[in-house]
Amino acid sequence: MHVYQNIKKSAQISTAFWDVMSQAGLLDIVVDGLGPGQHRTRAGGHEFVNMSSYSYLGLDAHPALVRAAAETVLSVGALNTSTARSRVRFSVLEDAEAALSDLFNVEAVTVASAAAAAWCALPLLASGLFTDNQPPLMVFDKNAHFCLNAMKAAVGDETEVVTIAHNDIDALESLCKQHPLVAYVADGVYSTGGQAPVTELLRLQDQYGLFLFFDEAHGTSTLGANGRGLVLEEMGEINDRTLIITSLNKGFGASGGAVFLGRKGRSKERRDFALRNGGPLMWSQRINTAGLGAILASAELHRTDELTTLQRRLRENEDLFDSLVDTAQRHDGLPIRFIKIGSEDQTVRMAQDLFANGFYASPIFFPIIGRGNAGLRLMLRANMTTAEIEEFCSLLKTLQDKHA
Amino acid sequence: MHVYQNIKKSAQISTAFWDVMSQAGLLDIVVDGLGPGQHRTRAGGHEFVNMSSYSYLGLDAHPALVRAAAETVLSVGALNTSTARSRVRFSVLEDAEAALSDLFNVEAVTVASAAAAAWCALPLLASGLFTDNQPPLMVFDKNAHFCLNAMKAAVGDETEVVTIAHNDIDALESLCKQHPLVAYVADGVYSTGGQAPVTELLRLQDQYGLFLFFDEAHGTSTLGANGRGLVLEEMGEINDRTLIITSLNKGFGASGGAVFLGRKGRSKERRDFALRNGGPLMWSQRINTAGLGAILASAELHRTDELTTLQRRLRENEDLFDSLVDTAQRHDGLPIRFIKIGSEDQTVRMAQDLFANGFYASPIFFPIIGRGNAGLRLMLRANMTTAEIEEFCSLLKTLQDKHA
Repeated sequence: MHVYQNIKKSAQISTAFWDVMSQAGLLDIVVDGLGPGQHRTRAGGHEFVNMSSYSYLGLDAHPALVRAAAETVLSVGALNTSTARSRVRFSVLEDAEAALSDLFNVEAVTVASAAAAAWCALPLLASGLFTDNQPPLMVFDKNAHFCLNAMKAAVGDETEVVTIAHNDIDALESLCKQHPLVAYVADGVYSTGGQAPVTELLRLQDQYGLFLFFDEAHGTSTLGANGRGLVLEEMGEINDRTLIITSLNKGFGASGGAVFLGRKGRSKERRDFALRNGGPLMWSQRINTAGLGAILASAELHRTDELTTLQRRLRENEDLFDSLVDTAQRHDGLPIRFIKIGSEDQTVRMAQDLFANGFYASPIFFPIIGRGNAGLRLMLRANMTTAEIEEFCSLLKTLQDKHA
Repeated sequence: MHVYQNIKKSAQISTAFWDVMSQAGLLDIVVDGLGPGQHRTRAGGHEFVNMSSYSYLGLDAHPALVRAAAETVLSVGALNTSTARSRVRFSVLEDAEAALSDLFNVEAVTVASAAAAAWCALPLLASGLFTDNQPPLMVFDKNAHFCLNAMKAAVGDETEVVTIAHNDIDALESLCKQHPLVAYVADGVYSTGGQAPVTELLRLQDQYGLFLFFDEAHGTSTLGANGRGLVLEEMGEINDRTLIITSLNKGFGASGGAVFLGRKGRSKERRDFALRNGGPLMWSQRINTAGLGAILASAELHRTDELTTLQRRLRENEDLFDSLVDTAQRHDGLPIRFIKIGSEDQTVRMAQDLFANGFYASPIFFPIIGRGNAGLRLMLRANMTTAEIEEFCSLLKTLQDKHA
């Protein structure tokens, strides 16, 4: 018991964080949308810019996606087929998966969220079904996303589980030397900043046959040709010793999540294994037709110059931000920045002042990160204006001086 | 290892079922919608009635719900807020949860599917957070839905897990006598037919303080005043030793799933525990705004005479069906019927002939049920016409004679 988690204990540890946040008015903000990353609170009509939105390209409010979502519901005339997808499914689901598979040159299946994709794919990988019936040693990066960690108990019922320090290539290589088959579970881009050392991991794959499992929820759309993400951009194309899960919400701007099972048109066996044994893929809800319509529209946009333009604008906004504020993530080519403040009290007061002045910036502190390392997590977007970034950075400096 | 599951083994066991179904053309049917439970195949334009749709009241194609889904996406202007719901959420999410809470007099939170609701609620219950920090002995009904079973490993990392025979009240009572705190995990209405013995379970709750956890995916909307489902109808109202999860797709006709945490307005602590520690509730996607719009429209419909009329029509269709075909579920007040055929070959050939004649009926056989017990699972709907039911039942008899 408590080999993988201890919910009661972690609930006790995190209570203070939530209570402080709640008392500070930084939780449960109920809003209406005002377009590109801008919101108005229902109570009070306070308008603000969201500086911690993971819609990195601003696609969540893109008119073409929103319109496609609405039109698809109307043209299909239902949100779902009301039967398991393995039996009867709508054309639009078939089309959305084909569009994703074509776009990224992968065998894509879709589920209701990236977490559902983890639930589908991780136990299957652990069982050995994707590795000639040999269950791999499953090695998790310590900082892998919560939805991956939450699957450790199910994974541990199929094979051995080890957790190593963040990006610890030496530890991973040592395990590769000791075990005939190792699978490594990591994020491509970490939601807390930074990325997986993909080049090094590919070397271990070449050398030891290491199987790689990536969560690309923060990499898809944001990075790479046609928005294929950090991992596929570095790999060139997916290989048969790699699985990728991702979100189709976040950067992609639609709904749901996906598993990239292998190469397009060459992964029929894996597709069958997943659809017949893959938990949420078998019995859970599909992405509704609104979400599927948005996926089709977004996949189309990902093939156009508009995607390249949005990625370039995001890079320009990162550069502008980095020219004004120094962080550990400066010029790392990713859109996530962490403003370290240190004191938890000070972090909360800064977030409150920023919010009062029209900016929501997400406070992060213990237990999400170590005590005394509190700060604000920012997510830059392609559809932030120069004026918004400049005003925010200027305000940030003023408040840092005030609260120092 | 393999305490709770053995995916490789169950994949091997079920391969034959899937291959037979696939070769028979009874899987991967890609369709466009034609309205009430009717579809047309994309390849070939074959039209058929779905006799195994879980949209028991026909709400999946209800114009008011479909329209509300489309209009809500357009009026909000986005599918999601692109920020954790605990921080910033759309008014329409707040409204949808308030509408559900009002409708069923519960404290409702929503997630992307009923499976996500299980993922959220079962480990929390197991941890003891809902029972004064005392982790209960978790007793699963053997026939509890796959998505509940799939959580056993995570639950088993928090507390002790036992599985008992289906509806075995004696075994459950015996465990209640031996253990200070027991929680029972079951379906309200079983997707394979039949229901939980709610009256007996409530007696055990009274007598021993038994905690009850129900999946009402097939009970909500279909049964009870305002569609509150089998369990709440029998209980009168939810109490603080009961958790209910449900689907908002299926009978309810919208998208996503929900957890009913306790009594409306009297479950603030549980709500905080769930939102701060409940896996998918913390970091996974919300139901998109299309689904939320449909939830609002469906909740409104559940308060009207239309709901009562639809429930009555469903009962009439059950009666009509039962007057024509005898099954073990005859007159059980539930919409699920199992036509036992026995031989797996014969079941597949019957399903093929039915499909050729315009009816999809879902074949079920080993390993879903025991060998030699194959048959067709039917789900009756309020929006089946008398002619459809009569034609299907007549065809069924002809084919049963032909294939006998």
